Amino acid sequence: MNRVVEYLDRNQARFVEELKRYVSIPSVSTDPAYRDGILECVRWLEGHLRGVGLAVEVHSTGGHPVVLARTGRGRGRRPHFVVYGHYDVQPPDPVQSWTSPPFRPEVRNGCLFGRGAADNKGQHFAHIKAVEAYLRTGTELPCDITFLIEGEEETGSVNLVRWLRAHRRELGCDAIVISDTSMPGLDRPALTYGIRGLINFELEVHGPAQDLHSGVYGGAVANPAMVLCRLLGAVHDKAGRVRIPGFYAGVKPLSKRERGILSRAAMPESRLRRILGVRKLSGERGFTAEECRTCRPTFEVNGLWGGYSGEGSKTIIPASAGAKLSCRLVPDQDPRAVYESVRRFFLGNSPDAVQVQLRYQAGCRAYVLDPGNPLVPAALRALEFSFERKPVLIREGGSIPVVSSMTELLGAEALLLGLALPDAHIHAPDERFNLECFRRGQLMSARLWRELSAVTCRHAW
Amino acid sequence: MNRVVEYLDRNQARFVEELKRYVSIPSVSTDPAYRDGILECVRWLEGHLRGVGLAVEVHSTGGHPVVLARTGRGRGRRPHFVVYGHYDVQPPDPVQSWTSPPFRPEVRNGCLFGRGAADNKGQHFAHIKAVEAYLRTGTELPCDITFLIEGEEETGSVNLVRWLRAHRRELGCDAIVISDTSMPGLDRPALTYGIRGLINFELEVHGPAQDLHSGVYGGAVANPAMVLCRLLGAVHDKAGRVRIPGFYAGVKPLSKRERGILSRAAMPESRLRRILGVRKLSGERGFTAEECRTCRPTFEVNGLWGGYSGEGSKTIIPASAGAKLSCRLVPDQDPRAVYESVRRFFLGNSPDAVQVQLRYQAGCRAYVLDPGNPLVPAALRALEFSFERKPVLIREGGSIPVVSSMTELLGAEALLLGLALPDAHIHAPDERFNLECFRRGQLMSARLWRELSAVTCRHAW
Repeated sequence: MNRVVEYLDRNQARFVEELKRYVSIPSVSTDPAYRDGILECVRWLEGHLRGVGLAVEVHSTGGHPVVLARTGRGRGRRPHFVVYGHYDVQPPDPVQSWTSPPFRPEVRNGCLFGRGAADNKGQHFAHIKAVEAYLRTGTELPCDITFLIEGEEETGSVNLVRWLRAHRRELGCDAIVISDTSMPGLDRPALTYGIRGLINFELEVHGPAQDLHSGVYGGAVANPAMVLCRLLGAVHDKAGRVRIPGFYAGVKPLSKRERGILSRAAMPESRLRRILGVRKLSGERGFTAEECRTCRPTFEVNGLWGGYSGEGSKTIIPASAGAKLSCRLVPDQDPRAVYESVRRFFLGNSPDAVQVQLRYQAGCRAYVLDPGNPLVPAALRALEFSFERKPVLIREGGSIPVVSSMTELLGAEALLLGLALPDAHIHAPDERFNLECFRRGQLMSARLWRELSAVTCRHAW
Repeated sequence: MNRVVEYLDRNQARFVEELKRYVSIPSVSTDPAYRDGILECVRWLEGHLRGVGLAVEVHSTGGHPVVLARTGRGRGRRPHFVVYGHYDVQPPDPVQSWTSPPFRPEVRNGCLFGRGAADNKGQHFAHIKAVEAYLRTGTELPCDITFLIEGEEETGSVNLVRWLRAHRRELGCDAIVISDTSMPGLDRPALTYGIRGLINFELEVHGPAQDLHSGVYGGAVANPAMVLCRLLGAVHDKAGRVRIPGFYAGVKPLSKRERGILSRAAMPESRLRRILGVRKLSGERGFTAEECRTCRPTFEVNGLWGGYSGEGSKTIIPASAGAKLSCRLVPDQDPRAVYESVRRFFLGNSPDAVQVQLRYQAGCRAYVLDPGNPLVPAALRALEFSFERKPVLIREGGSIPVVSSMTELLGAEALLLGLALPDAHIHAPDERFNLECFRRGQLMSARLWRELSAVTCRHAW
């Protein structure tokens, strides 16, 4: 292990140059105009991983390819871990808001700036470098490791899930390691033991065949925008609870232990208010802000439209109005079942004078790893070793759709070891990856394989 | 009178040519790019009215000029009527949707097509031609007539109201005649004895300083779009009544007589449904569709916005959301008082976690002429004479802001004698004015001065 640590120390400058090269490739998955960037990225990654000493396969999926890279199979039955990452990135828009060009990565103030630096190239690259250190120093890995690096995370990983279903046997493993979340600070390394699930859907209310003069007809015809507001306005009660029958079906109460973990991890509410720019937090009665934003299901309007929204006034009854909606889910809510409750609620409350349409777009389950699982202290030990600080357990409110699919399909738990700091500007201009996180992330990864293998072996043998 | 009728008959072809010239001038008031069109229109109108034999004055108002044109003062104290019209027109957009260019008027199927043909150039031009017939045939008018033709109707007549306040004495009159509404059909000439008032305002709900990730923060922060929906969703009760305290203050009950008039004028509901493209009409319990759309106040959303409304999904809590709102008013609702009720209601129902802003934009009172006023049968006689059909009394749901201001400032009732047919495509591509309406409108106007003078004289002497 000393040689591994030493190798990592000695090669930081080169690693940063390699990461700069990786980040310079415009592998935007959401816009077909970047198709060449995707292909270039796959070629570069394939070459790089092969250079590291891994056995590389590029799999087509119907969408952007999946890059698989394995360490050599060891002797006997050894633990097997899958490291998940994604080489695709968000679009760089608005480009003019960047201090340096999004695809010309630059180091400033100890951070590497560039699109994808933190989300997710830098994070999985730390794991690649840790494995490189083992291979190049001839240090035996206590396990087999497979890197699974996909190219459609930013578009929902639809093809990956299909591909995983076909390759689930060969990817069977003891745990999935994912560094694609955040840590509260360099002094607060964290294991994210839970994320919420998600459903996205759209609601549209259709009324008259075209926009109507609100004077000539107003009063005699249902206004689709008013109906939309009435439907959405009825979703919450005064205590902030969702009133839709069946919405909370399967939701587990929070245990005392969990509430303790969450209150230790919670940001002070005054700081949260400042970050959000609100005078007052809001939420469900009986739950703290931290609990509300990580452990409770939500119903949100993400967007509203209908009628005229330009300058001045236009007195019309809009022909239709709509909303983009999403719910965050917690264990053990079923995405389809929640959607069906919402659907019944809206259709049941709609007047006959309009047509109400709901469209399910995507959904995924929440994922929570039992903090009592032996993988948890193992991962915490690796974090403490590398960051030299007591790590925290956190639950996050966001969703990573592929996590629940992967854990289900591969029959293994996921360890979310995020390396991005809260100010990483993920999905925004001036995205950055703190190079101290990069360095300590490599150390964490190097230690992780020993810690995980130890607890996994105890289990297996 | 025979000579007047004969003159009108003989000169139809010339009148149509003159109207074509008038309509060809792009006097769009809403867009400063058409400034030259406004000025050209004023010059043409001034010259034309002078040619007709009227005493013309062009008044600057701070906005677009008002054109005043008077018949010579007669002997003794004679009745005085003001004919209101507007020479400004709506923008022609979308231009490519017109069959013939909007400012190259063309006669097809007995209609003159062009922007402003019906709204309002053709309608007040019919009155000008009627007065011309008197003057050119040396037939004595039984009254004095002043044409007041403004250039800012399509932008709210703000400067006109200010100008009227300064000129109210010289414009004092016995009635104001306005042809700027519709008639149900050539076989159903109509006097519109009531129009609704209007307030336009905007509601904005502001939450966090910027859009937030709905996963990371959702549940702990008030969603401005949800709050907006909750506020608007609470406006109506299940019976379709507005629940805002004070909203109905001053609203007069509908008399039996009025309900009779309305039910005779009403379009069959099946036909209304077909026109609107809805399966079912909607409205306030206890009122017919005709009553709801003409005699009852309303609260409508004209537009909604907030958050993301593009393709796919973007799981954000929008920083803000807003709505364009308007209420139609009836006698004797006061626009400011209604607005204050709405404001109190929204502010009183808003959670502390958001900021709610309301902005009053414009307002006008409803106008209703008592069907028992002797002017009413006089106007109906003129309609019956010219259209050779039994005319109907109608109330319209729309609003003409200048009407209530004019009647208040000039201390006279308004007679709304609309000449546009329902398919005139007002404010839309292929606007048209039926030339039979134009011809019969001239006859109606010619007869109107006698009928009105007769009842006005009975009153004055």
